[in-house]
Amino acid sequence: MSDLKSKFLGVYKVLKSELLNDPDFEFTDDDRQWVERMLDYNVPGGKLNRGLSVIDSYSLLKEGKELTSEEIFQTSSLGWCIEWLQAYFLVLDDIMDGSHTRRGQKCWFRLPKVGMIAANDGILLRNHIPRILKKHFRGKPYYVDLLELFNEVEFQTASGQMIDLITTHFGEKDLSKYSLPIHRRIVQYKTAYYSFYLPVACALLMAGENLDNHVNVKNILLEMGIYFQVQDDYLDCFADPEVLGKIGTDIQDFKCSWLVVKALEHCNDEQKKLLHENYGKDDPACVTKVKALYNDLKLEDVYLEYEKSTYEKLINSIDAQPTKAVQAVLKSFLAKIYKRQK
Amino acid sequence: MSDLKSKFLGVYKVLKSELLNDPDFEFTDDDRQWVERMLDYNVPGGKLNRGLSVIDSYSLLKEGKELTSEEIFQTSSLGWCIEWLQAYFLVLDDIMDGSHTRRGQKCWFRLPKVGMIAANDGILLRNHIPRILKKHFRGKPYYVDLLELFNEVEFQTASGQMIDLITTHFGEKDLSKYSLPIHRRIVQYKTAYYSFYLPVACALLMAGENLDNHVNVKNILLEMGIYFQVQDDYLDCFADPEVLGKIGTDIQDFKCSWLVVKALEHCNDEQKKLLHENYGKDDPACVTKVKALYNDLKLEDVYLEYEKSTYEKLINSIDAQPTKAVQAVLKSFLAKIYKRQK
Repeated sequence: MSDLKSKFLGVYKVLKSELLNDPDFEFTDDDRQWVERMLDYNVPGGKLNRGLSVIDSYSLLKEGKELTSEEIFQTSSLGWCIEWLQAYFLVLDDIMDGSHTRRGQKCWFRLPKVGMIAANDGILLRNHIPRILKKHFRGKPYYVDLLELFNEVEFQTASGQMIDLITTHFGEKDLSKYSLPIHRRIVQYKTAYYSFYLPVACALLMAGENLDNHVNVKNILLEMGIYFQVQDDYLDCFADPEVLGKIGTDIQDFKCSWLVVKALEHCNDEQKKLLHENYGKDDPACVTKVKALYNDLKLEDVYLEYEKSTYEKLINSIDAQPTKAVQAVLKSFLAKIYKRQK
Repeated sequence: MSDLKSKFLGVYKVLKSELLNDPDFEFTDDDRQWVERMLDYNVPGGKLNRGLSVIDSYSLLKEGKELTSEEIFQTSSLGWCIEWLQAYFLVLDDIMDGSHTRRGQKCWFRLPKVGMIAANDGILLRNHIPRILKKHFRGKPYYVDLLELFNEVEFQTASGQMIDLITTHFGEKDLSKYSLPIHRRIVQYKTAYYSFYLPVACALLMAGENLDNHVNVKNILLEMGIYFQVQDDYLDCFADPEVLGKIGTDIQDFKCSWLVVKALEHCNDEQKKLLHENYGKDDPACVTKVKALYNDLKLEDVYLEYEKSTYEKLINSIDAQPTKAVQAVLKSFLAKIYKRQK
């Protein structure tokens, strides 16, 4: 494990211990045990990319000057707030989607002793964020901005989840409602704000920047977030499950995937009929037919072309940014995801 | 309808319209329709006591000086934030408890077109609160205090819900874990903070007060909140269902009710055995046995004695408050609940 990652995990332990001794609630040993188990199960088990990228971004904004231990603690705390936010969304999303596994283990609500208590645990995870912010950032000149940033991004993410749920589950399964602008809107709100914009925005606030002066940075990060989700949609169908670490089910789940949107764009009437008849069915024969259609339409090539042109556009936008430090932050994000295989 | 209540409902319309046009999310007509229907179904249908009491409390703090239309709008907005918070808790609690009806209509998640999307709708309701606060209170000297107040009270309520869920549902149904301190802790956190302390705290902040100087006010309101819930527990069993507007099910639901706690305190070994065997069973014969035991133990008298002594203690604490205005606020709350029959 890298030194940075082990320091980051050390901060998790500190934050957890503070939350288990929050003076605004009288914990009993039973409560403490429940919350600790819930946190350990749901918060630190992901790739931690979002959280770690707050530290990375802040380092780059500081142009390589070594961070003080206080700066490491604070950037890590903000990084953990994002991981907490993610855990909150995932716990509730899994309940809503009726999912079975998450990060290689049973979903929290599937544990026999948990069940529907998981919904309240999700709420608790969300409530921990302002506790962490209050404890470690109250009195900082950017404290209100941080509170508003997390509020804004949570609102956008929940709104994105709403349009995803309405589009996918509401009314009949009707493929004709799927289109590129709808895909883009879902992805931008549901994923890009909290996964790409939020870490950088946290780093900018800590570096004393006014977020209103960085609308371009936000837009570039949102574009990257959309590219990231298109990759996700592509890999769900075309990646080797061994490498990806899971078996994709977007076709069975009637997901508004970039692939089905592109298929709808490129197909003729007969192929459209096939798609309507087979998409969103939990039947291996239907899935095979959809995948064969994707191959007929050469969606792998469409994807590679998209990836190439998106990369070029992003590099151009990044190079137009006024400071080298901000350019470095954005290029570091792009390098982490360009041509990823998992 | 009173003039105040109709003004209050007018503010709901304004806030709703602002939320449906929030610039931080690109709404489509479908989204707007969904959110509007969700708000109308879940937010304004209660008794509105919590919301209205912000306006009442603020008026009393202003010692009867007529409120400006701006003050009415602002106190109403804070009142609605509490109603939004309540709606958020109720939507999620109903999912967790598997409830069927709420405020005389089907629970939101029970509507065929809603289902599990309700969990995200609950999250959206919660997210509307900081949107309202930002729109109408940003720039006020007490803006950060408001944000922190709502964060703190939400954290306490979710923690109270956690201990309620753990105590009631976790492990075996074991009555021996129920006691007065546990009942008190659940009620204080799950109900008293947001129902009694929060409205007054909002009014105090708007009146320019520092909440740190009003710890006694908080403690008196929490005591009142606990008294309110004891009434609720009492009425669940002893009120005429016609007057109460619902049929109580605390006995069947194995609730940590004040009545069962008092029964455990007063019963002999044989009665305790009967209680263990019949409490928490969805069988009318069992419920009848428990109710007969409550009568044998004269719990109505125990309750009337509790009500009398609690009222006296509260009046004494209120009279010890330094200002007449604060005394008036607290007495107004007490008058609303003392000896209530529903």
